[in-house]
Amino acid sequence: MPGRTVLALDIGGTKMAAAVVDRGGRVSAAARVPTPQGRRLDGETLWKTVLALLDRFTSGVGAKQVVGVGVGCGGPMSWPDGHVSPLNIPAWRSFPLRERLQERFPGIPVRVHNDAVCVAVGEHWRGAGRGTANVLGMVVSTGVGGGLVLGNRLIDGASGNAGHIGHVVVEPDGPECTCGGRGCLEAVARGPAIAAWARANGWRHPQGTARDVADDAARGHAVAIQALARAGAALGVAIASATHLLDLDVVAVGGGLSQAGPLLFDPLEEAFRRHARMEWARSVRVVPAALGQEAGLVGAAALVLSGSRYWNAD
Amino acid sequence: MPGRTVLALDIGGTKMAAAVVDRGGRVSAAARVPTPQGRRLDGETLWKTVLALLDRFTSGVGAKQVVGVGVGCGGPMSWPDGHVSPLNIPAWRSFPLRERLQERFPGIPVRVHNDAVCVAVGEHWRGAGRGTANVLGMVVSTGVGGGLVLGNRLIDGASGNAGHIGHVVVEPDGPECTCGGRGCLEAVARGPAIAAWARANGWRHPQGTARDVADDAARGHAVAIQALARAGAALGVAIASATHLLDLDVVAVGGGLSQAGPLLFDPLEEAFRRHARMEWARSVRVVPAALGQEAGLVGAAALVLSGSRYWNAD
Repeated sequence: MPGRTVLALDIGGTKMAAAVVDRGGRVSAAARVPTPQGRRLDGETLWKTVLALLDRFTSGVGAKQVVGVGVGCGGPMSWPDGHVSPLNIPAWRSFPLRERLQERFPGIPVRVHNDAVCVAVGEHWRGAGRGTANVLGMVVSTGVGGGLVLGNRLIDGASGNAGHIGHVVVEPDGPECTCGGRGCLEAVARGPAIAAWARANGWRHPQGTARDVADDAARGHAVAIQALARAGAALGVAIASATHLLDLDVVAVGGGLSQAGPLLFDPLEEAFRRHARMEWARSVRVVPAALGQEAGLVGAAALVLSGSRYWNAD
Repeated sequence: MPGRTVLALDIGGTKMAAAVVDRGGRVSAAARVPTPQGRRLDGETLWKTVLALLDRFTSGVGAKQVVGVGVGCGGPMSWPDGHVSPLNIPAWRSFPLRERLQERFPGIPVRVHNDAVCVAVGEHWRGAGRGTANVLGMVVSTGVGGGLVLGNRLIDGASGNAGHIGHVVVEPDGPECTCGGRGCLEAVARGPAIAAWARANGWRHPQGTARDVADDAARGHAVAIQALARAGAALGVAIASATHLLDLDVVAVGGGLSQAGPLLFDPLEEAFRRHARMEWARSVRVVPAALGQEAGLVGAAALVLSGSRYWNAD
């Protein structure tokens, strides 16, 4: 079916993106809108925003050419039925996203997965992990998420939750995590944790974000440099653990914080090399993600386009 | 092909076992011999011991009924070509085990994998993980090894080394590990590390093993109890990390040390519950392995008997 396309949707707490993606993974059109906010926002209003976004594409490409709909959405969610309760979208709690989309697009596959899983799938299919069989894709941002493709197949786990690299333990007695646990990678390396650590150690930006930390680090601010180094080291430890457990080919690190470049990746590499000593483990490539903000859309499309490689449910 | 059987072989540094396994995973005959020792032992002599062990079975069941040969062997090895260099069998370095067996059994599949991987496969196929799709099988003994079945398929990794749970980092600044890294689970929880920690903390058994520690712990010896608790806690942390990354159904813990029972499993459970707080992660079952010393043989047979579920190479 050359020329036919997939509608891809990437739903996050800050923005929602939609695009038309062809069978080669090319994003031929994309639109982004801010995710409606507000404590009184209800789920149906938000759904109408999604529908309006999608209608811009179905009119453009012709509804008959759409062979499927792939969606990445913030977790948690029940999977594969796609009842979503995104942490950062309080208007949706057990919102039946997949069913609603299926009603709107009857007769074609509609598939919903975690947004970080879609990023990992995108990086495996068309990004930094292309051509390799075993990929961990990571998103380091407000949270730390991820997804796994092993033996060229997406790993879903018992409940669709495989890939939670953010909750690999890097310091058993470390800081409390939002998950209720302790010493998780996310508790150390997520953006707000980096900014909080910098502030606790003398960085004077009461409202500053991890991006501000990164900017100051680039200017040579010692505490800011240390704050990124601490996060990088935690990432290196978690990636060493993941590589030992999974014998990976490629780890693709994306998300806003990966923009910090060597200030994050050099300490990451150093910690990784310290812990991953066996020859087979050292051969993994830890690289920045390649697809940028399109990774989630490309991966969402791949849920539909790649047979059972990235979708083993229903 | 009912009634036809597989020859299974389990080669470790202490003993070698061979058995006839039927399509249902039943071990209908098994024999064990001590692994020949000695610094001057050469690889060919050892190979002759293996051949003699196998000949006892091929005469017994009739060579024509053997549909394949499955082997678990101590690592490291190159995979899938099965050139083995078992840590505890110095006589074999890059020994072409798979080729030699293929010469002996022409025309039928011969498959070789890591011995801990075979234990995990056995536990998934016929043991504690039976009927579930996502299983981590562990062997806690002189080393800490493991294997992974995810989505009902064995995970091999890039070089056949997936499953190395023993090198998940549980204390970034912890003890040095034999792998060259630091703070690995194995550096804390393997038998010799448990005994060494107990001795360093006042346990007076210059030649004592982890089994002696376990015996003393059962009698109420405080340091021995603490030594097992420390290992159990490290296991709990590593299992929490693995569960978060992989969304497992079952973790089956085998190997000699798992015989210590609640003295090991209670602290394990406590650490696991402290770190694994999300509902989906808490639902994993961490249980003792079910097949005992037959697990490796049953899993080795499954490499041959279960189509592509446990073998995706060649």
